[in-house]
Amino acid sequence: MTVKQLTLPELVAACAELGVPGVGLWREPVQAYGVEATAGLVRDAGLAVTTLCRGGFLTALDPDARAAALADNRRAVDEAAALGTDTLVLVSGGLPAGSKDLGAARERIADALAELAPYAEEHGVRLAIEPLHPMYAADRCVVSTLTQALDLAERFPAHQVGVTVDTYHVWWDDRAPAEIARAGAGGRIHALQLADWTTPLPEGVLNGRGQIGDGAIDMRAWKGCAEAAGYTGPIEVELFNEGLWARDGREVLKETAERFLAHAIDE
Amino acid sequence: MTVKQLTLPELVAACAELGVPGVGLWREPVQAYGVEATAGLVRDAGLAVTTLCRGGFLTALDPDARAAALADNRRAVDEAAALGTDTLVLVSGGLPAGSKDLGAARERIADALAELAPYAEEHGVRLAIEPLHPMYAADRCVVSTLTQALDLAERFPAHQVGVTVDTYHVWWDDRAPAEIARAGAGGRIHALQLADWTTPLPEGVLNGRGQIGDGAIDMRAWKGCAEAAGYTGPIEVELFNEGLWARDGREVLKETAERFLAHAIDE
Repeated sequence: MTVKQLTLPELVAACAELGVPGVGLWREPVQAYGVEATAGLVRDAGLAVTTLCRGGFLTALDPDARAAALADNRRAVDEAAALGTDTLVLVSGGLPAGSKDLGAARERIADALAELAPYAEEHGVRLAIEPLHPMYAADRCVVSTLTQALDLAERFPAHQVGVTVDTYHVWWDDRAPAEIARAGAGGRIHALQLADWTTPLPEGVLNGRGQIGDGAIDMRAWKGCAEAAGYTGPIEVELFNEGLWARDGREVLKETAERFLAHAIDE
Repeated sequence: MTVKQLTLPELVAACAELGVPGVGLWREPVQAYGVEATAGLVRDAGLAVTTLCRGGFLTALDPDARAAALADNRRAVDEAAALGTDTLVLVSGGLPAGSKDLGAARERIADALAELAPYAEEHGVRLAIEPLHPMYAADRCVVSTLTQALDLAERFPAHQVGVTVDTYHVWWDDRAPAEIARAGAGGRIHALQLADWTTPLPEGVLNGRGQIGDGAIDMRAWKGCAEAAGYTGPIEVELFNEGLWARDGREVLKETAERFLAHAIDE
């Protein structure tokens, strides 16, 4: 998503050129290019698929909408397995229209995980619940903190369900470092994503994630926190930013790699 | 602020007409009208000033900026006392330019409170730390949860420092009900404010607070939560909303009173 202006072949070529060893993919461009075709493309380039984004949206009250969401999540698991990644990121979903009950919505996610987690395991895929910033609690994701995400994940085995830690969503939370330690101790940090916090936020607050180093988040501290918790997996940079999307994608990818080295890697 | 299009005399007249017994005032219009003149206006109308908004912005690193902030907060205490309210709401302030250290900023607030709280007590004023939604952590308020606000407040006597509970800022937080109970048990709920959460958020995310009943927040539940914690003080409705400001202020005040009765008062 950081460079969604690139086609998949362009993205794969640019990663190879820059020495980026892995890439997190989103379902929509993968489906458009073809799942098997994408799998072949990344395999031939020697590029790892770090995660597939995203499953989830499991909070519907309507039985038909709920069944459709579960079916779609099974397809997402299938796609992850076909792409050769072991991790499917889940964005839980917001409140159904007219509902004001966050707690009940979180329980419906737990119910859905009970159906999806064994299916995912059969396909060699782990589910990674991503808490989203509390500003998305109403319309996108009722799971707002790592604490809530882990409380859900820990109802299942760690090889079935863990969490995604994204600095953009957790940086404000003084409990997040302890929760990262908890997640690491349980083997439940299934994905680690970086994005910076810049202001003012744009209308709709979706596409204002800052380039690494441009904002308020201490990237080295959060990366160190995950590593201290035992995390040794890939680190993704996931930026939703209209300004970055308007630029040349290869240039943005190069800048992102440079920023990652400058702001997240120890000197 | 809910009806900032009204002048102070218009506001006072409209409150009297609607039977609204108290009003929270902001410093800027009070200073423009004159503190003593405002005090006379509300006193003559028999209208209580529930709180004065706002002091705070206590996170500066620069010594001169910090001294200026402390002096301004002493003036805010003086103004609150002159208006006859016992509560000054504090918005803590964001990260100083270039800083990424939320924890250190929160400690500077504690240091500032140690200077301000005794001064406020001498003037019969309580300080009410308001946690703001985490989406304001970088640029407006490094205190993002009731937990953090209470951790700060409890370093001081309850008659000096408590918290402001605003539904808009805490509704997403599953720990907030327990923290309201904690605040109530300690006599530290110094103000209670209602606003609803509506989406999409506007650019800058400042002026998108929803009219009571228009959004995702269960007002009756939160009001009940505060009352179960022993809160018996005034309840303010504080909306920052460009759409409401563009309308006739008296009409908005009437609508707000009706919405309050319909959505926050037990049947």
